[in-house]
Amino acid sequence: MIKKIGVLTSGGDSPGMNAAIRATVRTAYTDEIAVVGIRRGYSGLLDEEFIDMDYSSVGGIMEKGGTVLRSSRCEEFRTEEGRTKAADLLRSNGIDALVVIGGEGSLNGAKLLMDENGIPVIGLPGTIDNDIAMTDMCIGVDTCLNTCVETIQKLKDTASSHERAFVVEVMGRNSGYVALASGMAVGAEAIIVPELPVDYEAIAEKIWNERKRGKINCIIVVAEGAASAYTVARHVEHRIGYETRITILGHIQRGGSPTAFDRVLASRMGYASVKALEEGKAGMMMSLNGGKIKGIPLEEVLSHKKELDMELMEMAKILS
Amino acid sequence: MIKKIGVLTSGGDSPGMNAAIRATVRTAYTDEIAVVGIRRGYSGLLDEEFIDMDYSSVGGIMEKGGTVLRSSRCEEFRTEEGRTKAADLLRSNGIDALVVIGGEGSLNGAKLLMDENGIPVIGLPGTIDNDIAMTDMCIGVDTCLNTCVETIQKLKDTASSHERAFVVEVMGRNSGYVALASGMAVGAEAIIVPELPVDYEAIAEKIWNERKRGKINCIIVVAEGAASAYTVARHVEHRIGYETRITILGHIQRGGSPTAFDRVLASRMGYASVKALEEGKAGMMMSLNGGKIKGIPLEEVLSHKKELDMELMEMAKILS
Amino acid sequence: MIKKIGVLTSGGDSPGMNAAIRATVRTAYTDEIAVVGIRRGYSGLLDEEFIDMDYSSVGGIMEKGGTVLRSSRCEEFRTEEGRTKAADLLRSNGIDALVVIGGEGSLNGAKLLMDENGIPVIGLPGTIDNDIAMTDMCIGVDTCLNTCVETIQKLKDTASSHERAFVVEVMGRNSGYVALASGMAVGAEAIIVPELPVDYEAIAEKIWNERKRGKINCIIVVAEGAASAYTVARHVEHRIGYETRITILGHIQRGGSPTAFDRVLASRMGYASVKALEEGKAGMMMSLNGGKIKGIPLEEVLSHKKELDMELMEMAKILS
Amino acid sequence: MIKKIGVLTSGGDSPGMNAAIRATVRTAYTDEIAVVGIRRGYSGLLDEEFIDMDYSSVGGIMEKGGTVLRSSRCEEFRTEEGRTKAADLLRSNGIDALVVIGGEGSLNGAKLLMDENGIPVIGLPGTIDNDIAMTDMCIGVDTCLNTCVETIQKLKDTASSHERAFVVEVMGRNSGYVALASGMAVGAEAIIVPELPVDYEAIAEKIWNERKRGKINCIIVVAEGAASAYTVARHVEHRIGYETRITILGHIQRGGSPTAFDRVLASRMGYASVKALEEGKAGMMMSLNGGKIKGIPLEEVLSHKKELDMELMEMAKILS
Repeated sequence: MIKKIGVLTSGGDSPGMNAAIRATVRTAYTDEIAVVGIRRGYSGLLDEEFIDMDYSSVGGIMEKGGTVLRSSRCEEFRTEEGRTKAADLLRSNGIDALVVIGGEGSLNGAKLLMDENGIPVIGLPGTIDNDIAMTDMCIGVDTCLNTCVETIQKLKDTASSHERAFVVEVMGRNSGYVALASGMAVGAEAIIVPELPVDYEAIAEKIWNERKRGKINCIIVVAEGAASAYTVARHVEHRIGYETRITILGHIQRGGSPTAFDRVLASRMGYASVKALEEGKAGMMMSLNGGKIKGIPLEEVLSHKKELDMELMEMAKILS
Repeated sequence: MIKKIGVLTSGGDSPGMNAAIRATVRTAYTDEIAVVGIRRGYSGLLDEEFIDMDYSSVGGIMEKGGTVLRSSRCEEFRTEEGRTKAADLLRSNGIDALVVIGGEGSLNGAKLLMDENGIPVIGLPGTIDNDIAMTDMCIGVDTCLNTCVETIQKLKDTASSHERAFVVEVMGRNSGYVALASGMAVGAEAIIVPELPVDYEAIAEKIWNERKRGKINCIIVVAEGAASAYTVARHVEHRIGYETRITILGHIQRGGSPTAFDRVLASRMGYASVKALEEGKAGMMMSLNGGKIKGIPLEEVLSHKKELDMELMEMAKILS
Repeated sequence: MIKKIGVLTSGGDSPGMNAAIRATVRTAYTDEIAVVGIRRGYSGLLDEEFIDMDYSSVGGIMEKGGTVLRSSRCEEFRTEEGRTKAADLLRSNGIDALVVIGGEGSLNGAKLLMDENGIPVIGLPGTIDNDIAMTDMCIGVDTCLNTCVETIQKLKDTASSHERAFVVEVMGRNSGYVALASGMAVGAEAIIVPELPVDYEAIAEKIWNERKRGKINCIIVVAEGAASAYTVARHVEHRIGYETRITILGHIQRGGSPTAFDRVLASRMGYASVKALEEGKAGMMMSLNGGKIKGIPLEEVLSHKKELDMELMEMAKILS
Repeated sequence: MIKKIGVLTSGGDSPGMNAAIRATVRTAYTDEIAVVGIRRGYSGLLDEEFIDMDYSSVGGIMEKGGTVLRSSRCEEFRTEEGRTKAADLLRSNGIDALVVIGGEGSLNGAKLLMDENGIPVIGLPGTIDNDIAMTDMCIGVDTCLNTCVETIQKLKDTASSHERAFVVEVMGRNSGYVALASGMAVGAEAIIVPELPVDYEAIAEKIWNERKRGKINCIIVVAEGAASAYTVARHVEHRIGYETRITILGHIQRGGSPTAFDRVLASRMGYASVKALEEGKAGMMMSLNGGKIKGIPLEEVLSHKKELDMELMEMAKILS
């Protein structure tokens, strides 16, 4: 039986992580399970940066961006020795199970910790990239998309005033989800994703046609992993003589008070993670699946690659 | 074969309706189908307020709240004679099919128009109440929730400054969805919905406990259809002596530039409605179903009642 | 010489009060003057709710709405006995001077405390009503105006969709400033302020003319102290048959993260209050005066009434 | 007597320009003066891109970022021949006077047009840099500051999560105003402006001290004209071993719906420009001067340099 749970956030932070921490702590509190907050992800676990958390310690955090437990990337935990040390520290501190909120690498670390050392773990998908398989959405994506949309909308104002094109680089090293969804939401003339080769010819033709129809601005959204914003801009300027500017949204996509969607999603996932551990389940990621929260074996999650919805890509072209 | 489509918005407006109009028009345009925008819903249909729409007529509308086609409620269309007249006008104007964006009443009108007069119709669920069955979300709900959250967050500031309770009335005549989701997202101490009886005793006890734990504010979210905000406030003041204020969010929940989610959802639904008509389908509502857009027979949609997720209600109590 | 300063917030809270507290504390800290935070305004002063504040105790508060010191209205302090007791408590706690952030009533209390008991006080104008004389702006007004504008803009969306009029009640018991400035900023068709009699005839004519010009929405902004929103709505409906809705913005105008303007203004005023006390000045309100912060004797401030700019009222009529 | 006024926006766009256009048009309309909108600044003037504007043509534009008249920079107008041609075109189109909304370069062009060719001009200061002398604020600055603050606040979230420093580059080629005001408003640990030499030693010491006090994030705001963000970051990383990231806010600072302040300011200036022309005044810039709008001779404006408030710089250091 679970008496004490550890919770940590790991990897790049994402808005909603605090809501997940809050839900984990308060659900456990209600069920009389102790919670230990572990600072700075796996790094803090290895350094025993533990703080006891109760009902009040998570008051007023849901609305905050980032993660009050802080986060980091940790080299030592990538080694088997590191993970064994971590398991020993969890045991010697009486921590029976671990809830890990983070991206694919962090979930993989959690899985190895369990496989190698028998520590029950539950993973929550927290990443603004939406690049984790087997869940409709990750914690933080919705907030990130709204930040992109609000920001690009501002660029459209000045783009129209000066009849310019803007190339906007958004998050997404391996995944074009943020580029695709935010590009659709602002009616971008072109969306460039890592999953597909860039066809500058087609992009130029498309923009050219829009211009002939009278459009006085042009937005191209490019995922950071797909192409350099500078390269894209050069192509646009060169091929169609459009005065082009570049904006790299960067880390502002990570911050901000989470949206309603992310608060609710993260709350549900945090709640479900404690309930799963209480039922003796482990080695799972909590996943949003058609409106329901389900536990999916981490093995399954990590052996799949999140696919980009190619029909949406087609649709985006038609609608812009 | 479909050569000309009519599109209208009906009933209470909701953010994202413009994105749905845009997607309908541009998808049809790409497939060489003409689109006629019908102003003021069924009212405008009966008055022949028709405007030809092409690619450019929907430029720059996606980001706007409300509906550029305007909306209304129409008594005449509730009669069989009204609907027959409408069908005649559609036919005499060469309009082969109708896309209707609106709430349950509007979809019901569309269904009757088809059943009685054979006009192919597709419905899109557009209402901030999220009270339409068989779809995970309706167009506008996500924006409405974020407006509620931003607004209630402001009330929390002043509630804390003055150590007050606030009773906030949100949309939802028959459905507690907006109250539940926004209440969860702001960590409301109590959420009152039409689907459940109000237990003032339990609410008072809960608030009392929070106060003893040191909370210096208290938010109670009540759906307009569940109880009067004034009654709720009186109970809270009377039972626990908390200085209480009331805020009725009202129509600000209807407006605002749509969120990324609503823009993408509405775009997908508008796109799907044209594709469905092209494939000879009709009498359906486009529905969000586990991340996919599916057509569901209007008959099925309208014979079901949207249920409130009772597990979420329980969860909300534990987390706040 | 001043060794210890007390700071409190009093009356209705306003966004930016935290920035003023922060600036007061940090300026004093740098100059090696101790600061005592007094909770709940004059009430907490009489109850000796004192907390020592240093550099770190005001970290991260600038961005928050409301006031971390909380606020209240206090009957006892309105009596001479109450103020004498307060002065005694300040002296017995070694507090040499008091910085009071609040509205006219609170500043008046501060003045009396000084006049009667010789406690050096500095007042900062903190109120969203902008009804304090001798200062261009009060702390919180700018944030309040932006909240009004964002909210009314949402109403315009739905007003246009349904071709309706909206009567929006904003703050301002004795002062029409918020109504006038926010009304101008949203292009309201009519602005009703306490400083002028309401001319329903003229309003109706104006709205009627706008409608004939093709406007499909109508916004009337009314200060709470000028007329009941319901009365205004009845007049509009009755005289010109416009379907009219009412929205009372209420307490959401008090909250929200302060704007850049309010943060800078409050910071400058908090800073100036400490510098003034160090220079031996007291009995003054810090005022924004043509871009400069100046100390104005409280006597002068309190013997003047803030006038509404009648030229702006005329302008608003011409521009809408 | 003035019968027809031309209005144009020139140089970099700024939020609020539309409110200024609207006010110019509607004030003239009320006084029965015709208005010609000139597209694309001086460029469009030389190309005779004229559009007649009346009351309705400026409906719904106040809330929009950018400028509906569009803008550009124009080489030809920098020559005397260009300006003479422009004057001839104005005369041959019956345009008696010109209202120019733009930055210093644009106002200078306006002044030369008047000096050389006798065309009455009024300038309105529209630039987000706030680098025009003799006016407290320029149109667009307040919106720009709020965009900076909201954006940097998001960076603070992720900075705290990862205990990082961020160097944020904001607008300001010759002026540190935006860096100073936004830096103060977010509590930046260092603010780097073009008006002062960069003292990396002092910055490093300051940050080091903050860290020892327990601060887990660090924000450095740098005006684009003061130093390269990369250079600053290298210094911070090198001197104190802080993991540092860079964000260049870029063009998003230009866009966005204008704040209440910018809408009111721009409206007042637009109104005043028409009134001034009606009174036979010209060769002036409308200026915000201690809460009042005043006309200042362009000669005086252009012969002064906007000074940075050095006391504010000192204050910013003390408060952060």
